[in-house]
Amino acid sequence: QNDLLSATGTTIFTVMSALAVQHDAINLGQGFPDYEGPADVVEAAAAALKDNRNQYPPMTGLPELRQAVSSHNRRFYGIEADPNGEVIVTSGATEAITACLMAVLNPGDECVLIEPLYDTYLPVVKLLGAIPRLVRLSPPNWALPRAELAAAFGPKTKAILFNSPMNPTGKVFTAAELAFIADLVAKHDCYAICDEVYEHLTFDGWKHIPLMTLPGMRERCMRIGSAGKTFSLTGWKVGYITCDRSLAGNVAKAHQNLTFTTPPNLQRGVAVGLMKEDSYFAGLSATLEAKRDRLAKGLAELGFGVLPTQGSYFITTDFRPLGFNGDDVAFCRALTEEAKVTAIPVTAFYASEDAPGHYARFAFCKGDAIIDAALERMRIWV
Amino acid sequence: QNDLLSATGTTIFTVMSALAVQHDAINLGQGFPDYEGPADVVEAAAAALKDNRNQYPPMTGLPELRQAVSSHNRRFYGIEADPNGEVIVTSGATEAITACLMAVLNPGDECVLIEPLYDTYLPVVKLLGAIPRLVRLSPPNWALPRAELAAAFGPKTKAILFNSPMNPTGKVFTAAELAFIADLVAKHDCYAICDEVYEHLTFDGWKHIPLMTLPGMRERCMRIGSAGKTFSLTGWKVGYITCDRSLAGNVAKAHQNLTFTTPPNLQRGVAVGLMKEDSYFAGLSATLEAKRDRLAKGLAELGFGVLPTQGSYFITTDFRPLGFNGDDVAFCRALTEEAKVTAIPVTAFYASEDAPGHYARFAFCKGDAIIDAALERMRIWV
Ligand SMILES: CSCCC(=O)C(=O)O
Ligand SMILES: CSCCC(=O)C(=O)O
Repeated sequence: QNDLLSATGTTIFTVMSALAVQHDAINLGQGFPDYEGPADVVEAAAAALKDNRNQYPPMTGLPELRQAVSSHNRRFYGIEADPNGEVIVTSGATEAITACLMAVLNPGDECVLIEPLYDTYLPVVKLLGAIPRLVRLSPPNWALPRAELAAAFGPKTKAILFNSPMNPTGKVFTAAELAFIADLVAKHDCYAICDEVYEHLTFDGWKHIPLMTLPGMRERCMRIGSAGKTFSLTGWKVGYITCDRSLAGNVAKAHQNLTFTTPPNLQRGVAVGLMKEDSYFAGLSATLEAKRDRLAKGLAELGFGVLPTQGSYFITTDFRPLGFNGDDVAFCRALTEEAKVTAIPVTAFYASEDAPGHYARFAFCKGDAIIDAALERMRIWV
Repeated sequence: QNDLLSATGTTIFTVMSALAVQHDAINLGQGFPDYEGPADVVEAAAAALKDNRNQYPPMTGLPELRQAVSSHNRRFYGIEADPNGEVIVTSGATEAITACLMAVLNPGDECVLIEPLYDTYLPVVKLLGAIPRLVRLSPPNWALPRAELAAAFGPKTKAILFNSPMNPTGKVFTAAELAFIADLVAKHDCYAICDEVYEHLTFDGWKHIPLMTLPGMRERCMRIGSAGKTFSLTGWKVGYITCDRSLAGNVAKAHQNLTFTTPPNLQRGVAVGLMKEDSYFAGLSATLEAKRDRLAKGLAELGFGVLPTQGSYFITTDFRPLGFNGDDVAFCRALTEEAKVTAIPVTAFYASEDAPGHYARFAFCKGDAIIDAALERMRIWV
């Protein structure tokens, strides 16, 4: 059997969600909302199901969804992308990331990754025979270590893959940081795979900036969005890639080997979603910001060290002030089994053993009553 | 960019479907029905959408679908598989095939493939750094060349991947052929990836036999089914893998890197489908058999050499008796542009240039009126 997979664990999100079910814990681990997505989006998908939209759609996506992705790019970022040849719909952002890596990496190529990192990045880079070059952000401020990043790029660099707004840190990359990355990408004549699934989940006036909008980056970036995150429908698994025509060919050919197409009824729903008015997107971030505040305040009151979150579904906390005597895996296990609240150990987002071992990640994309109930359970436990 | 993908073409199914649209041709190319799937299955999926079943399901699939896959295995083949740990739901059979290959192959391993072959097999084997060993069936009877197959296995063989009932040939592997394959798999201590998406589409009393049911094969086979093909809902992209627990771990870890999960509302619909009574499955093959007869008879009357089809959606035809002066790509292009009927050139299912160049594949999973209209258009053209 494949050695790399044999050496990989089951994803921490599945492990912790199973543990949550087993102990009847409130699951603030895996990042999925417990509330519903927009009714009109769901309704459009249901109507399409009954309207015979159930056979293979075009391989790169329904024309109406590719058009909607293109309009969305223009409306929010001023990005011009031809719906016919520069947009590819995928079965979720996970597939999109894998397709983009597959599209550009050859065995022996180097790919720059930023730790902490989402747990599919590293195994996929390795499965493709490419060589990961990891650069680590330092808590609690998660600033980009510029010299180290520059040193990670070299003659064999083919791509950088990074996530902004960032899971699990809640970091939104600044314009200055993005400019620094853009310079490296241009200088080393390589590509950037931009996992921007939390693009509409930013707070406190922070705005998401696609790397693709920086000078010289239009042709080098593969920008990935997620209907699951943007419409609170994580089970739908509809993602979209925007990239230059010169890259789209290989991205589509990767997609054709991975899933080939994505369910047309769900694509139809997402097309309706992406055409919603600006107030929907503003409302989404305002709602999540209030949830972040609610959970952050409660966790701080319990004694957690609460790291700032500028975007995403997540708050990272330092549990050392609680006096817990153990690492993050032990903490998250004890919290699940004893307090009946589930969080994710942040070491799951690191490749090596020397990761900081005193952080737990909590998801706040939950109903207020659930957030309050989780805080109350932890209050009793603490 | 990735050299293997750069050297690969866009899938022939997409190319020919686009050409069909461009020329307003009747599309008997890509294999998708133009009729609808069972109403109760569609209804169940629509109800689940509105019943808040829209967040991440468990990574290996909804429990009720894994249970239904397990029951289906028992009912039709006497296969016992634990729904909890021996069944993995994927976003279509294409993902399932890629996940199974990824689960077992290491770079440098050999994988035996049988030509003509589905067009994702070869690029995926190569992308994983494995070495394809191709064995070719000879038309018009497509019998297994036993000595050549035996010679293709060796000390580096890790797996064989094959398709029965087979696209594009319509061949259903016989018990004797499967026993021969099973012996090789056991003798070389390797795995079999069994693409059985057309399992319920067999004709004239031919019955599909999963390799997994042969002695010694239970632990070595990854058996792949497809809701798209079994319920005439090709756009849904729900597939399922049955395999031994010892293989399921790596298969699930491949899946987690490819799509992670599959839409829960569609999974719910498929669970309803797999629990349908025997008459549904018998009716499906009877309906398709009548369509095969209708198209085969019409094509023969037009002068095509019609090869026998024991299963699948497809008829392979020899167009030389028509006196066409050119290869299969030229034929399918002319048929689309001039007769306004689209078929697939069979050389698309071969890795090398020396493939037989006088076959065109027609899909018969279409309404009778469409089949008749296509025949009439071809009659005028011929
Ligand atoms: C795809 S698994 C869970 C969702 C997620 O992105 C997370 O929890 O980090
Ligand atoms: C997944 S593409 C088209 C369907 C098919 O299997 C075929 O036409 O051969």
